[in-house]
Amino acid sequence: LDAVEVNHIQMSDIISELEPLFNPKSVSLVGASKDPFSWGARIFAHLVMGSYEGKIYPVNPNEDRIFGYDSYKKVPNSDLAVISVRAQLVPGVMEECAGAGVRAAVIVTSGFKESGADGAKLEEETTRIARKSGIRFVGPNCMGVLSTTCSLTVSITPAFAPKGNISIISQSGTTGNVIVETLAPRGIGFSKYVSSGNEADLHFEDYLGYLAQDDETKVILGFIEGVRDGKKFLRVCRSLDKPFAVVKAGWTSMGKHAAASHTGSLAGADEVYDAIFRQTNVVRVHTIGELMDVGAALSVQPQPNGNRLAVVTSGGGAGVMAADSCEEHGVVLAELSKDTLGKLDKILPPFWSHRNPVDMTTAAIGDITMQTRVIRTLMECGEVDRIILIAALGMLTVNRARYEGRTFPEEMKNIIPRTDAVVALEEALARQVVNMVKKYQKPVFSINPSVMLSTIDPYVAKIVRILSQGGVVSCVSPDDAIKAFRRAVEYKKRKSIES
Amino acid sequence: LDAVEVNHIQMSDIISELEPLFNPKSVSLVGASKDPFSWGARIFAHLVMGSYEGKIYPVNPNEDRIFGYDSYKKVPNSDLAVISVRAQLVPGVMEECAGAGVRAAVIVTSGFKESGADGAKLEEETTRIARKSGIRFVGPNCMGVLSTTCSLTVSITPAFAPKGNISIISQSGTTGNVIVETLAPRGIGFSKYVSSGNEADLHFEDYLGYLAQDDETKVILGFIEGVRDGKKFLRVCRSLDKPFAVVKAGWTSMGKHAAASHTGSLAGADEVYDAIFRQTNVVRVHTIGELMDVGAALSVQPQPNGNRLAVVTSGGGAGVMAADSCEEHGVVLAELSKDTLGKLDKILPPFWSHRNPVDMTTAAIGDITMQTRVIRTLMECGEVDRIILIAALGMLTVNRARYEGRTFPEEMKNIIPRTDAVVALEEALARQVVNMVKKYQKPVFSINPSVMLSTIDPYVAKIVRILSQGGVVSCVSPDDAIKAFRRAVEYKKRKSIES
Repeated sequence: LDAVEVNHIQMSDIISELEPLFNPKSVSLVGASKDPFSWGARIFAHLVMGSYEGKIYPVNPNEDRIFGYDSYKKVPNSDLAVISVRAQLVPGVMEECAGAGVRAAVIVTSGFKESGADGAKLEEETTRIARKSGIRFVGPNCMGVLSTTCSLTVSITPAFAPKGNISIISQSGTTGNVIVETLAPRGIGFSKYVSSGNEADLHFEDYLGYLAQDDETKVILGFIEGVRDGKKFLRVCRSLDKPFAVVKAGWTSMGKHAAASHTGSLAGADEVYDAIFRQTNVVRVHTIGELMDVGAALSVQPQPNGNRLAVVTSGGGAGVMAADSCEEHGVVLAELSKDTLGKLDKILPPFWSHRNPVDMTTAAIGDITMQTRVIRTLMECGEVDRIILIAALGMLTVNRARYEGRTFPEEMKNIIPRTDAVVALEEALARQVVNMVKKYQKPVFSINPSVMLSTIDPYVAKIVRILSQGGVVSCVSPDDAIKAFRRAVEYKKRKSIES
Repeated sequence: LDAVEVNHIQMSDIISELEPLFNPKSVSLVGASKDPFSWGARIFAHLVMGSYEGKIYPVNPNEDRIFGYDSYKKVPNSDLAVISVRAQLVPGVMEECAGAGVRAAVIVTSGFKESGADGAKLEEETTRIARKSGIRFVGPNCMGVLSTTCSLTVSITPAFAPKGNISIISQSGTTGNVIVETLAPRGIGFSKYVSSGNEADLHFEDYLGYLAQDDETKVILGFIEGVRDGKKFLRVCRSLDKPFAVVKAGWTSMGKHAAASHTGSLAGADEVYDAIFRQTNVVRVHTIGELMDVGAALSVQPQPNGNRLAVVTSGGGAGVMAADSCEEHGVVLAELSKDTLGKLDKILPPFWSHRNPVDMTTAAIGDITMQTRVIRTLMECGEVDRIILIAALGMLTVNRARYEGRTFPEEMKNIIPRTDAVVALEEALARQVVNMVKKYQKPVFSINPSVMLSTIDPYVAKIVRILSQGGVVSCVSPDDAIKAFRRAVEYKKRKSIES
């Protein structure tokens, strides 16, 4: 379609054009339904449950009321239309939208270009109608759009996002939703998320241009299979003055073939992308896990002054593996000064490691005072810029579950850790750490193999959220933290070279 | 100490010498205590809660009864003594053990060689006494020993292990316990586990020699910082006719320095270890996550006939990333035949990927029949040896938690997935997959970002355990599964070259 036309849109235009998408005063849901298994019902419910601040108009010619809302026979005047009807009906709905003065749309429906020639025709027709009437749209064949600006949740899955400063553009809807649904229970917040689908109208690079100028967005995360307009993409990447971390899938020939059959577009030579990423401020990673860790780090951690890392652990083996991982990923382990070593000698048992990684030994397990004093010493010293805490926080509550179903004499029941006591202990340490981060502005990663439990365990979630909100990122393994650390360092490095 | 003496012990000797360690008829717990925060109380409770099949004798000169058990003033005659008293008291306790006819011991106590010269002296004295009386012992400064042969749980943490065929030797106690505590809730079973501590008497290579000949052990997992007797280690590695997967920490110079301060022993040139691993049947990995994944795969999966992998997904982006990961790790994506493609065309919507990775599209989400038919087609075809299923199983139950605390009209409550209905659906698919694995003997990895929830969520645990017990391994990400896949392939390859 009109690639030239799209190219002509100026950066300032995109801000006003995407305003009704990310901050609509009213939303029409075309295809709203009572059937709890339909997408039309789920999107409707998630919009309501997400506490959307504007007006919601369900549209369904066959219903008078849906879920207690008056249903509209035709699309009413509204800022945004969410379209979830059969593909064949979409061009007609778009005509209706045009007539009703709708300003932007999200087409969730699939069965367009990705399904073959007939679908491609429907997609072209829909795009033509939208262009004619000035309606910009997301999709088709996408998972939806989130914006915490107005608590907008357009999603098939319950991807409720807390307010925050990360925004996501994803060419894979499942991937984008997984990022929100994994980080949200950890207290990591979002500003905007768009699953871009087939990108018949709005392209990845349009959203990127918008987010580049969006004051509510501090960090942009992207999942790319291939961008439509490489020149525009490069231009936007060059203009970025905030971190943009990205997984560009299809970076191998096997992946490229898989991408071609997925999006129908050629993924493009990976070398070109890599050159763009290297030239500009883009942090490239290869897995979604890495993308989430580095995104969380760039979102909540303070900006560090240097790259010298201290590792604190109560298990010697973990310290050795962390040291290996540092060397593997080119991360500098801080050399502790005589002064610092002397201070630690006074806090720790005689057989501590006497070097970085600081192995506090098992004597530190459960000893909040000892752990706090060690961390404070490293926060105060001049030779450490960042800290990784291994297995100190959010771990203990999990043990309780391991005792379930065991038989034992009544007298032994006090062995089982009391959840409230353990949580109080961990919470006290978490608050100490968070206060020190605030005071000394040194980034901290907390290693917690149980961090995934934040989704369903209120105790783990409580500790992890105190940490996130206080600038501390929880990672599953030291290796994950060290990889995220390296990427965050890369961004900082490149930024300071440019400025 | 007497390295020469240790060297002379024959392989057959080690079997009879470690019999009282891994299959004792009675256990004395020296330092048993009522104080719920003491190690003596926790080890006692875990021994009882683990349903140890032999007799338990708590030993404490100051108590008459502990937790309802008669307490002994002195060590009674018993196969195994577990020693958890202050380091200074340990040589005396060892004398007592010798007098009482104890055959083996586990010294949990720390404060020996790892703590300095005084501790080293205590360690030498203890070892001398044990050698004189023929008592073999684990530790000191270790986390304990497990053996499901007689349901023996000697552990400070609740590391209850289900019966199975994996055995672990770990020079880091924390690491060994984490492996058991992570895999156990997933239904992955163990035979024996030893945290080897300071290795004053029994060395890593002794345990390895034992496990090499142990019929109950199918897979050995190891965490090594440095072995005492390199020649013996090499000899045992050469003799192995079962998989041995290992993390050798301290493989970089930073890691080596950290290891030196941890164990007090020189970690040794990594090149030597690497040469041994390459020459013999040893699978080397670098992280504990990898060790667990490859261990689970070698433990429960059928032995495959070839290395051609099929990836099945309902998200195109995940398929592209999996293809990238395959190429990155040298894994072969199976090329689907015309016949197979034709069969899949009849099952899947027209816009499926038409190649491997098999992107079933979102049409497959929740459609157990479609998923089962796709998997069966790949199981039946001749060109696929192994399968990775992305996000098909054990995922859905988690969504329920995301709705907690949301307000919405009563009419919308049916939108929230009913746990029983979702679990029934997932269980049906899990049983189908497990039946197909049994019939076609093709290894399957199931990708489930929520697999960690097995620890505390009974629904996730149910699905994951059905899979484990049926030979299917659950991994957090496609990347993890592909790495484990590659390692399992390596073992198979080397084995077939040798045989």
